[in-house]
Amino acid sequence: MEAWKAYQEQHKDRFLQELLELLRIPSVSAKSEHKDDMIRCATDIKKRLEEAGADLVEIYATPGHPIVYGEKKVDPSKPTILVYGHYDVQPAEPLELWKSGPFDPTIVDGKIFARGSCDDKGQVYMHVKAFETMVQTQSLSCNVKFLIEGEEEVGSPNLGQFVATHKELLKADCVLISDSAMISLDTPSIDIGVRGLSYIEVEVTGPNRDLHSGVYGGAVANPITILAKMIASLHDENNHITIPGFYDDVLVATDEERTLMAKAPFNEQDYAEDLGVQALWGEKGYSTNERTGIRPTLELNGIWGGYTGEGAKTVLPSKAFAKISARLVPNQISQKMTDLILNHLQSIAPDCVTVKAQLHHGGEPYVTPIDSVPYKAAAKAMEATFGKAPIPVRGGGSIPICSLFEKELGLKVVFMGFGLDSDNLHSPNEKYDIANYYKGIETIPYFHKYFAEMA
Amino acid sequence: MEAWKAYQEQHKDRFLQELLELLRIPSVSAKSEHKDDMIRCATDIKKRLEEAGADLVEIYATPGHPIVYGEKKVDPSKPTILVYGHYDVQPAEPLELWKSGPFDPTIVDGKIFARGSCDDKGQVYMHVKAFETMVQTQSLSCNVKFLIEGEEEVGSPNLGQFVATHKELLKADCVLISDSAMISLDTPSIDIGVRGLSYIEVEVTGPNRDLHSGVYGGAVANPITILAKMIASLHDENNHITIPGFYDDVLVATDEERTLMAKAPFNEQDYAEDLGVQALWGEKGYSTNERTGIRPTLELNGIWGGYTGEGAKTVLPSKAFAKISARLVPNQISQKMTDLILNHLQSIAPDCVTVKAQLHHGGEPYVTPIDSVPYKAAAKAMEATFGKAPIPVRGGGSIPICSLFEKELGLKVVFMGFGLDSDNLHSPNEKYDIANYYKGIETIPYFHKYFAEMA
Repeated sequence: MEAWKAYQEQHKDRFLQELLELLRIPSVSAKSEHKDDMIRCATDIKKRLEEAGADLVEIYATPGHPIVYGEKKVDPSKPTILVYGHYDVQPAEPLELWKSGPFDPTIVDGKIFARGSCDDKGQVYMHVKAFETMVQTQSLSCNVKFLIEGEEEVGSPNLGQFVATHKELLKADCVLISDSAMISLDTPSIDIGVRGLSYIEVEVTGPNRDLHSGVYGGAVANPITILAKMIASLHDENNHITIPGFYDDVLVATDEERTLMAKAPFNEQDYAEDLGVQALWGEKGYSTNERTGIRPTLELNGIWGGYTGEGAKTVLPSKAFAKISARLVPNQISQKMTDLILNHLQSIAPDCVTVKAQLHHGGEPYVTPIDSVPYKAAAKAMEATFGKAPIPVRGGGSIPICSLFEKELGLKVVFMGFGLDSDNLHSPNEKYDIANYYKGIETIPYFHKYFAEMA
Repeated sequence: MEAWKAYQEQHKDRFLQELLELLRIPSVSAKSEHKDDMIRCATDIKKRLEEAGADLVEIYATPGHPIVYGEKKVDPSKPTILVYGHYDVQPAEPLELWKSGPFDPTIVDGKIFARGSCDDKGQVYMHVKAFETMVQTQSLSCNVKFLIEGEEEVGSPNLGQFVATHKELLKADCVLISDSAMISLDTPSIDIGVRGLSYIEVEVTGPNRDLHSGVYGGAVANPITILAKMIASLHDENNHITIPGFYDDVLVATDEERTLMAKAPFNEQDYAEDLGVQALWGEKGYSTNERTGIRPTLELNGIWGGYTGEGAKTVLPSKAFAKISARLVPNQISQKMTDLILNHLQSIAPDCVTVKAQLHHGGEPYVTPIDSVPYKAAAKAMEATFGKAPIPVRGGGSIPICSLFEKELGLKVVFMGFGLDSDNLHSPNEKYDIANYYKGIETIPYFHKYFAEMA
């Protein structure tokens, strides 16, 4: 352990510089214009894994963006940790709200501002540097496999197929993921659940062409108005979702679990203040943490239609669009929920418009048992470096592939994340505290050590 | 009259070519990037008026886009016609729906496809060429003044001030405007009314930054959802507008007027078929022509918020926006209606968001009395060239400046328009039939002749 710390202390500046290099590549998986950047980013990760000491690194092509696989086998009798992460990032728009370029990483007050700094390049790279530390100090206590994909932010459409057809290659004893947050450096926590996802896009068509709103307005359905009415109807006055059957499969949290959750340090006023809102909003009968943790939700991610430029245009548009996603909780099945939502949207469309609704992507919810070995190893590792035991919490986000690891590989997944909720994931000015980055690099070798002891 | 026809027949190809030249200038008033194009367009109109025989042509600068004024005084004892029109056009977006470039005029099946071909460059240029015809054949029966502005499509923010401070310059006996449509070449008609306008933009702000929809979704108000609920509430189940007081000032049409309107040739099925809709939509208790003619309306002209690009982004946005405009009917006052709408939007905003709503521009409704001299001269002129008397109809569009001509200059306005409702005004593939263009040039000298006789 002393050897790790000395090595990390000696190389910390380089660890930071290398991450900044990685953040300069605009690896936006959603936009086809970044196809070459994705290949460049995968190639860079491959090189870094090789430099860090991996024996074998391959880039696997997929119908979408490539997957990077790397491994180092030290001893077949030792357990194997499969590290999963992703090198792709969310689109950076709206660009005008960034204080510095999203792909020009800038350090202010000890924080790295860049798209992907926290989600997930920064957290992936902690594993690469922790791995280097263990290799260089001859202290690898487990075999290590890396599975770093480029399509997490678009729902991992090709990873399922890859995992199903590479079971031998990916054989391991647990999956370790750093793609989540903790409460704070003072209050370490571990996400024990991720929500599932159904992400759809809806297109409402009124007239067959854009019309003059003076000549035709009032006589033909405006698709924006109709889309607004459809969206408005999806939540009732208590902010319950109105789609029939939406809550049917929800595994209701026990009173005991809710009581435990309520003990996590949380101040509603601080939360509202940080977001700059006068009042919070959410499903009646549930606390804020329950609303984001144990309840399914339905959010509008985007809407557009008609004239959206400068000034005024008196148009009655032909079409209006929305991107809508539901977060799902344990026992809800993504495909079933997607069908439910798509059918509901069709059923509420009035006959003055036509509605096309289709799936972008989906993913299943997942919960880590707190009595599982990977969870216990992660908790002990965090206690070793933070000085206190982490609190188990339910995260609101989604990592679509988790349920697949369990199903295809029979592995438990543990989320040992080092981000913060305030890191502006998916938002302008995404950041990652350098202190959290170093804390992650420091903690990961302990996970390897304790997992080897417990497994 | 024979001399006019011979002259027009001889020069018709040039008349068309000159119009195509004018349509090549992208004079989009709403977008600041076209500021230089606006000056270029005004300069071109000035040159064309001079070539056509105007004695005096001036370009007047305004805080916005310039105004072109031209005149030819033949005899102080003769009446004076003030021709009003505009050289600015609506934005061309969405560009991908145009079959040919919006500023690359293309003739297909005898129709000129270009932004501004009908609204209003094509119709303005008919007056320039009719004027040339009368000058060249020594048959001007009235003094003529031209007032061609560059801000009609953005609500004429500077024309009011110009008219108020140039009353002597603009002194005339009537205002003649060709910026409207008729039923068809077989069924000539004259718009006897334009609706007023209140065009506003609303901005709904939820959290102070874009958020990860998994981490925060369900716990904080989504501004798209709230905006949708606000929009949805503006029309009730009978498609009546719910804003308190919205209909209070409406001058209710008499049963007699409604009976007369119902006699205009109109086939609801053809109308729906042309628009490609299965069902029409509108205020209960009124026919389609009544909905667009005598009733005020509220239309969404644009909406945007969150991620609108390719693929999926799981964002809970900070802001959502909409452009909304109301068409007003006689006796409704634009400023009062604007205040009503803005106040209503504030009043229905829940405390989990903040709402900013502001005016883009407004305009007053106007109705031409059918027993006025300008109307009678226009009807007689159309009868002379179409072979049948035109039907008086109420148009749905707005020409904000009409009420001002009456108030400031004491003049009646007559709308002698030669477009068609199917000309795709404000839409992709705007067109103007060459036959209508020539018919306008043919009819205008008759208006001058009959107005001189009657005034």
